[in-house]
Amino acid sequence: MGRLTAFTEMMAAEVLKATPTNNEAALREAKRGILDYLASALAGREDAGTIKLLQAIEAEGGHPVAPLIGQNKRANRRQAALLNGFMGHALDYDDVHSDVRGHPSSVILPALFALSSGREISGKCFLDAYIIGVEVMARLGQEVGTASYLKGWHNTSLLGGVAATFAGARLLGFTARETQNAVGIAVSQAGGLRVQFGTQMKPLHAGLAAQQAVQSIEWTQQDFHGIDAALDSGIGFLHVYGGKATDEAVQTALTENWGKTWRIAEPGLWFKRNPFCSAASHGADAALELAGLRLTVSEIEKIDIVFPPNGDAALIHTRPKTGEQGRFSIEYVVALALLGQPFTLGNFGTAAVSLEAEKLMEKMSRSYDAEHKPDAQAIPKGRFTIVRLTLADGSVHSREVCVPKGSPQAPLTDAELESKWCESAPVQHKADRIIQAIRGLENGNMSELEGFL
Amino acid sequence: MGRLTAFTEMMAAEVLKATPTNNEAALREAKRGILDYLASALAGREDAGTIKLLQAIEAEGGHPVAPLIGQNKRANRRQAALLNGFMGHALDYDDVHSDVRGHPSSVILPALFALSSGREISGKCFLDAYIIGVEVMARLGQEVGTASYLKGWHNTSLLGGVAATFAGARLLGFTARETQNAVGIAVSQAGGLRVQFGTQMKPLHAGLAAQQAVQSIEWTQQDFHGIDAALDSGIGFLHVYGGKATDEAVQTALTENWGKTWRIAEPGLWFKRNPFCSAASHGADAALELAGLRLTVSEIEKIDIVFPPNGDAALIHTRPKTGEQGRFSIEYVVALALLGQPFTLGNFGTAAVSLEAEKLMEKMSRSYDAEHKPDAQAIPKGRFTIVRLTLADGSVHSREVCVPKGSPQAPLTDAELESKWCESAPVQHKADRIIQAIRGLENGNMSELEGFL
Repeated sequence: MGRLTAFTEMMAAEVLKATPTNNEAALREAKRGILDYLASALAGREDAGTIKLLQAIEAEGGHPVAPLIGQNKRANRRQAALLNGFMGHALDYDDVHSDVRGHPSSVILPALFALSSGREISGKCFLDAYIIGVEVMARLGQEVGTASYLKGWHNTSLLGGVAATFAGARLLGFTARETQNAVGIAVSQAGGLRVQFGTQMKPLHAGLAAQQAVQSIEWTQQDFHGIDAALDSGIGFLHVYGGKATDEAVQTALTENWGKTWRIAEPGLWFKRNPFCSAASHGADAALELAGLRLTVSEIEKIDIVFPPNGDAALIHTRPKTGEQGRFSIEYVVALALLGQPFTLGNFGTAAVSLEAEKLMEKMSRSYDAEHKPDAQAIPKGRFTIVRLTLADGSVHSREVCVPKGSPQAPLTDAELESKWCESAPVQHKADRIIQAIRGLENGNMSELEGFL
Repeated sequence: MGRLTAFTEMMAAEVLKATPTNNEAALREAKRGILDYLASALAGREDAGTIKLLQAIEAEGGHPVAPLIGQNKRANRRQAALLNGFMGHALDYDDVHSDVRGHPSSVILPALFALSSGREISGKCFLDAYIIGVEVMARLGQEVGTASYLKGWHNTSLLGGVAATFAGARLLGFTARETQNAVGIAVSQAGGLRVQFGTQMKPLHAGLAAQQAVQSIEWTQQDFHGIDAALDSGIGFLHVYGGKATDEAVQTALTENWGKTWRIAEPGLWFKRNPFCSAASHGADAALELAGLRLTVSEIEKIDIVFPPNGDAALIHTRPKTGEQGRFSIEYVVALALLGQPFTLGNFGTAAVSLEAEKLMEKMSRSYDAEHKPDAQAIPKGRFTIVRLTLADGSVHSREVCVPKGSPQAPLTDAELESKWCESAPVQHKADRIIQAIRGLENGNMSELEGFL
């Protein structure tokens, strides 16, 4: 069976004793993360998938305990986690994290909001739990993330539910034993495949993972029991979904240097300016620079888009039919940029791709360069995208981007984040009040913030 | 990305056009399967896990649409599938299937019961859907099952939710497109790890898979969309969880000879006489024969238990602390048999293992014989268990079993099944009426049967 190291126990011990809000950078990024998540969820509140899922929830019924963001309605905790998770990720507008290779906040925050409702939870405790959830998800990502992602899982759900369960246990002050039990319940609900990218199931993965955390916490509160060492053995979570790392490597990834820095701030969350997959951000910025050349479609002979090997794994659509599929297509994003069309929500919806964009995409091909050395600051590490135009007159124009705008190395300012919020919020005065509430959250309590959702 | 064959579409086409109740053997076994599932669920109705889960469901709230078996209560469809699935598998008393390497009926039937409630569903349609669900699960098991099981998944949940979704689509008369969509939603909820064996999560895997099917069907009814080719590509369900079979092998396993025979009857469901893992059944029968020697603990020097390689993969406890863990321990089962203690529910509960059994288990060891050729009838194929006692006086007594009682090669009679039912049922006259209703189910409708649950 292999491994016998008590990873679950070690993680639970770290999670329960940490108070990362003492770290100024972590506290600051956590508040930005909440703001950005709420902006993303509000932007998704009228998405077609949101409406369908809400109908399904209403058909089920349930005690109205926890708020559905931007809907002016409540549902039970499980349902709220499901829908709020979906909305956060609906437009692929929410944060990503390079260690996770996925989306932390749209899983962790909906679970924590759902578990906080109707309870006396301080803003400080909530922020601690959130920072810890991101920390766990990033550490799991380092150990499991690349292997699981390349095999076909969507790390947002696969790792997010386990991380959000740890966070929920910290939020509610679980004992070590209860925490390990909840994680045991969580691993058996983990899953979610990348093959869904470009369908409504991709954002639902965030909701399912948040639901998984709520179920794991609630069933533990009923004393329902799972394995208390779910991460440990040769048939445990890390081994089944992860790679073949040694016990020592796993232990380092999961528990070394807890609390020295926090991954929510280092390398940090990456907030999106645009509603498409972050793996397309480098190419988008490169194409925006090239758009300055103001070329017509007929002037362009061909377009080469160059990645490091596997750097485009998330971009599963090369010839998308709809804007929704286009969220996972470097070709579509580059086409929009070169055509001077904005990266608005409308251009990434269910409508068919324009004929003009289709024509331009026909000229594109992808290639991979394992030798090319990108900027040392590249995010994720080693990532770059080169967009190279060959024109009908034989001239070549090329741009490379390693650090896209919005990434931790080129972060959105607070003002930019707040303006993303205001664009997404249905009512301006409410937006201002939530921004105020989040600014002082470490001194407030969650019922105040919840009142504005 | 590999595979491009349209497995999902091909499976959906077969599922939607089949009417397996025309096959006498399949019809007969389906009715026996329903009886056995209901007996197993009723036997689990007061299990500690059942009570906790019911409390969690009641705390959530929901429209009371579908019956909770033996509880005289209703819940929403999702919750009913969850609890009824758990109850069916709670005591490991429910059927298994050798192609699945897991438990089909405790996933498929709770999903179908939940989806039938309050709708006009004929008994014939229900039986067709059930037989088809078992068929799909067995075919997935043949393609994915051994690889996924050995890697660490519990096939009951991993394959069951997908199979139950196909069955639910057949039950409700979905179109091919709707069926493929529902399966797309299902694959992203698939999971469940064997590391849980011996905890309450193991039976909950059946419930989670049934819940997964209900969610997949209900969200499809709301027109929520997932990938319509979830089984097909190199990052699809079959490839991520399964082995490295060729497209041709997969196609054969999934679609060849549909409807010539039905796997519910050939090789057939295996109904349990005893509430422990079927992988311990061979050793249990061997030990029962040896118990005729009436040996005392001190007369026994050592006990060797011999399996084919991996034949004991499900039996993860060698020194169980409780009867519950003992459900997955050949040592505990052999100890009970040799000590003359019956295989009652009480001996497989949460109580600690007796000192006497502990003492006897200390003398046991497992070994593996890859060369030994078992009986051609062995079930699963190639399986055997040899229990070999070496006594203090140097004599050796050995028994081998390849075909345990209850398996399709040595099936329980209808009378034995009905008596399992009557032992589990809370009220005798109700038992008689349900047995009658199931006998004529192909001519009745589901609301009649539901009235007795």
